[in-house]
Amino acid sequence: MKRIALALVGVGALAGAIATIAPVFGQSDGEAAPIYGIKLPQGYRDWHLISVKQLTGAGGLKQLRAELGNEIAVAAYREGKLPFPDGAIIAALHWNEVSADADNKVLAGGFPGAGLESSFAGSAVNVQFMVKDSKKYAASGGWGYADFANGKPGGEALHEKCFPCHQPAKDRDYVFTHYAPTPGLKNTER
Amino acid sequence: MKRIALALVGVGALAGAIATIAPVFGQSDGEAAPIYGIKLPQGYRDWHLISVKQLTGAGGLKQLRAELGNEIAVAAYREGKLPFPDGAIIAALHWNEVSADADNKVLAGGFPGAGLESSFAGSAVNVQFMVKDSKKYAASGGWGYADFANGKPGGEALHEKCFPCHQPAKDRDYVFTHYAPTPGLKNTER
Repeated sequence: MKRIALALVGVGALAGAIATIAPVFGQSDGEAAPIYGIKLPQGYRDWHLISVKQLTGAGGLKQLRAELGNEIAVAAYREGKLPFPDGAIIAALHWNEVSADADNKVLAGGFPGAGLESSFAGSAVNVQFMVKDSKKYAASGGWGYADFANGKPGGEALHEKCFPCHQPAKDRDYVFTHYAPTPGLKNTER
Repeated sequence: MKRIALALVGVGALAGAIATIAPVFGQSDGEAAPIYGIKLPQGYRDWHLISVKQLTGAGGLKQLRAELGNEIAVAAYREGKLPFPDGAIIAALHWNEVSADADNKVLAGGFPGAGLESSFAGSAVNVQFMVKDSKKYAASGGWGYADFANGKPGGEALHEKCFPCHQPAKDRDYVFTHYAPTPGLKNTER
């Protein structure tokens, strides 16, 4: 499914003209995360959805999470290509989960089912990135890691834990998250 | 944050040539949903993330959900523009929530916190769309509604319930979901 159509309406001579669409994978101007030297990638909020997750823990911790990928990462997911090619970036966006009061008032009316409750992504917690560069990050499975919250990268101690934590997913190129199926399509399609 | 750069490298005469990038908001070839006549929009799996939700209910119902928007919808969200302009489409993707066993083995190791458990988007349930066309859908607040599962639209009885169910969100142009903040950015930014 192609998202962007390039329509070249030639009223005059187009001979020799070359048109290309190039995705922008730049980094922002902010501070780089330690160890891997990664800055906040540009445009990650608009990347493509890989999957959705929930994390719960002691003390009432409850997060909703979205995994987004740039064009290279999502193309690799769809083709089942492992290892991910250089240039692939996966972003994990984490929010505090809060009750959706407005939704729940409607749901309390009994439609579309009894006893339903809804929650949604509240305040931002942090975002984590995996950046594939098989040469630059050869010592950590070809991936560089970065964690940012409130405009700033996390500390060195935090970033030291990224790669060991991803080791159990070594046979999936250190990536835990699977590409979610596409609701609405036939169940045999992606 | 601009996602697509258009590079026009003119080697010859470009006089009179007009280049435009037009997003594709076409519909697929499949069956149209009843009442509003909406077919499955092309490319919705790659639209931009609005927010993430969870729905729980009686009998163990547990869903993870992602709300995605096309360019027009997401631009309106960011600008706080209400009502949404014609052409805006919002997609709600629903999955059965399943335990993330591989993640949980790692989390059981105690990092990054004690007692953590993870779940993720499992099998697809359905997808729902809100399509803004203030003239065509004037009788339903300017929105057309559509629900698809496994490649087919839902029935008429289901689609009759869409608009009444969205009435309580009338002051937000019938849209319940808020645009989630962007983790990683300063908390004052979107």
